[in-house]
Amino acid sequence: MTSNDIPGAVIAGPALWPAQAHVPSVLGRQLVIDRGEGSFVHTTDGRRLYDGTAGLWHANVGHGRPELAQAAYDQMMRLETYHTFARFSNDRAMELAERLAGISPVPDPKIILNSGGSDAIDVACKLARRHWQREGREGKKTIISREFAYHGLHAFGTSIAGLDFNREGYGSASLVPETVRVPLHDADAVARTVAEVGAENIAAIITEPIQGTGGVNPPEDGYLEAVQRICRENDILLILDEVITGFGRVGSMFAAERYGVSPDLVTFAKGVTSGYAPLGGVFVSPRIWQAFYVDSPDTPVLRHGATYAGHATAAAVALRHLDILDDEKLVPRVAELETVLRTQLDGLAERVDAVADVRVGGFLGGVTLAEGLAADKVTDRLVDLGFISRPLRGGTLQISPPFITTDDEVVAFVAAIEQAVVDEANR
Amino acid sequence: MTSNDIPGAVIAGPALWPAQAHVPSVLGRQLVIDRGEGSFVHTTDGRRLYDGTAGLWHANVGHGRPELAQAAYDQMMRLETYHTFARFSNDRAMELAERLAGISPVPDPKIILNSGGSDAIDVACKLARRHWQREGREGKKTIISREFAYHGLHAFGTSIAGLDFNREGYGSASLVPETVRVPLHDADAVARTVAEVGAENIAAIITEPIQGTGGVNPPEDGYLEAVQRICRENDILLILDEVITGFGRVGSMFAAERYGVSPDLVTFAKGVTSGYAPLGGVFVSPRIWQAFYVDSPDTPVLRHGATYAGHATAAAVALRHLDILDDEKLVPRVAELETVLRTQLDGLAERVDAVADVRVGGFLGGVTLAEGLAADKVTDRLVDLGFISRPLRGGTLQISPPFITTDDEVVAFVAAIEQAVVDEANR
Repeated sequence: MTSNDIPGAVIAGPALWPAQAHVPSVLGRQLVIDRGEGSFVHTTDGRRLYDGTAGLWHANVGHGRPELAQAAYDQMMRLETYHTFARFSNDRAMELAERLAGISPVPDPKIILNSGGSDAIDVACKLARRHWQREGREGKKTIISREFAYHGLHAFGTSIAGLDFNREGYGSASLVPETVRVPLHDADAVARTVAEVGAENIAAIITEPIQGTGGVNPPEDGYLEAVQRICRENDILLILDEVITGFGRVGSMFAAERYGVSPDLVTFAKGVTSGYAPLGGVFVSPRIWQAFYVDSPDTPVLRHGATYAGHATAAAVALRHLDILDDEKLVPRVAELETVLRTQLDGLAERVDAVADVRVGGFLGGVTLAEGLAADKVTDRLVDLGFISRPLRGGTLQISPPFITTDDEVVAFVAAIEQAVVDEANR
Repeated sequence: MTSNDIPGAVIAGPALWPAQAHVPSVLGRQLVIDRGEGSFVHTTDGRRLYDGTAGLWHANVGHGRPELAQAAYDQMMRLETYHTFARFSNDRAMELAERLAGISPVPDPKIILNSGGSDAIDVACKLARRHWQREGREGKKTIISREFAYHGLHAFGTSIAGLDFNREGYGSASLVPETVRVPLHDADAVARTVAEVGAENIAAIITEPIQGTGGVNPPEDGYLEAVQRICRENDILLILDEVITGFGRVGSMFAAERYGVSPDLVTFAKGVTSGYAPLGGVFVSPRIWQAFYVDSPDTPVLRHGATYAGHATAAAVALRHLDILDDEKLVPRVAELETVLRTQLDGLAERVDAVADVRVGGFLGGVTLAEGLAADKVTDRLVDLGFISRPLRGGTLQISPPFITTDDEVVAFVAAIEQAVVDEANR
């Protein structure tokens, strides 16, 4: 098929190409959000919807918060940004890095800032490879990721995608070829893969502590500890992708704390600003950064950087946002919300034939539908009922409301999910 | 060398890892910017510096503009953002895409939004490969880039880097292996490379219209037209990287207009917001997007998207910023500034032994120092004189002030460069 010989009518549509969309399925029925307040958003056609996903797992402090608008305004009036290359920096980026170091899941970290989760993944993977090259262990290039993993969609994130559809369509098994995937819940398979590939060829193992887009998959007991042990025994770096879980989503500031693991690199994004400004980054452990901080003319350079690395306005928003997490005690509140969510979902799979499974980890829930039920139909029905969920892999509905939601709203959301599933099953 | 056996003292330093820095050379002498106004910035130690680079070629409308602070504030109060995946969108992202379509260098485009230039590069390269896979021409995977090219530093941008130091250190010639480089100013070499690699193996040729980080290298007469002809004759996509040149920097809205080329994909970032918010994107031509917009259940999906694709606050800032470009007639003003800059630089290489070459394209200038002179010493001296430049590849000083600068400021900046060069040569 060439572009001059397309079968079927080409839809004109608006100029904005929607993300991750089967375009003919979404045009003409888009939900255009134009206002938000707390846990609710409004569409241009007058609906008010409960944001049961916190957007893409990011709107943790809720929508339309005046403190954050004020922080952005004040910073832009003073200095919208200045770059952080070479001798240059800006005061807000430096202040944010110190603040983050104080709550870091990695002791004594250096922090690389950029503009989102995909950015963070690409630099973490580059840095893992750079680390071993610098140490003269030149074979150590392979990145191992898990089945159903989502690590952003820049070229490195695409290459290590455990959701095959995100990796496919570019003409090779993986854009960056040195990647391997392991099954979802199988530490023994990780050990076998390490043995097969050879530790001398492996740079890092990367994992989300709780898989998000892959269907909300919390780690089975002992899994993360086992992966960490395999990494240590084989001199492999452990990259923990906390883009979704970081900054409170699991009831501790980072999932590394909750699950008792000590990664070498931790990626973060969404929850650092609740999405008010594009910001992400990487916590880097001394094992990796020290060699780049030796007082010598021969010290190597990490040849990386982005124009908006340490964007001053994004940093100012992040600083104010961290205040909000503290002032409103939102991280301990998440632990309460996890209990509420567990209580509501408990027994749902047993009670409703159309529900195959439910999973909860932190204030993240996944409801997997029975075979044959279309998750997108259920989420459309939920919109009619006034609630936003999202179809994840494997016919799973996403549950990840803002931290500021009430117990009653969680109860109502789960009830609406049950109703939408039953409605769709009976249709 | 292992991390437990580092020769020399490890410097502690602040938590923020500076970008693209030989760390021991920059710590202890960082210039921390904390305020900006128009073409000037202030450091925490009380210096007032002329921003002769507009940061990293981005602060085109100057620093600290209240209109843009107000635009960000107003939008955040209403809706900081909502994502643009699948059915969902937000009104500001859609409005910005329509506005951009109206000034697009690609006729009838679709627009993919994200958070910066590196993002734009990775999706453009992915999309080029996706295009040919979809058309069933599965060999067409190679991306050709030019010597000294800079296309961001995510994994794809790193892979196609024409500045070797940005591609090296990761254990392979190129993270994404299917890449080839061609010499800087040699259209015949492009034709030869296409013949050698085989058009059936080539997805795209990518180029900055005027190379930036590579040393401010405008295209030689006829070069871009020749590359475009080679692309057309061989069914190769042309990607124009307008991250630096877009939105007025060359005296037309895009360099594609000035140089009379019609690319298939155009990347943009910096100048769309002057850096007030992290935003970038890609203009996609109908040749590429139409197949994804066919009204059929079998229509393929571009499996791409980022959380902050179409960030509502970034879009609101971009919209207000485009107003400023129009209202203050800044794009035609750039054409005047180019003339001022040319006049000032004219004869500098002849007059000053320590200057080997000067180059101007749009309101971008490069001053290449004679062999043996250290550009970083000259830029340090310039800071003492109150001016910011930046060392680029090949001992070149960057000149790219904000569009709002005065003729007198440009004259003073070039005079300061001459003085700093002479001072350093005589040291």
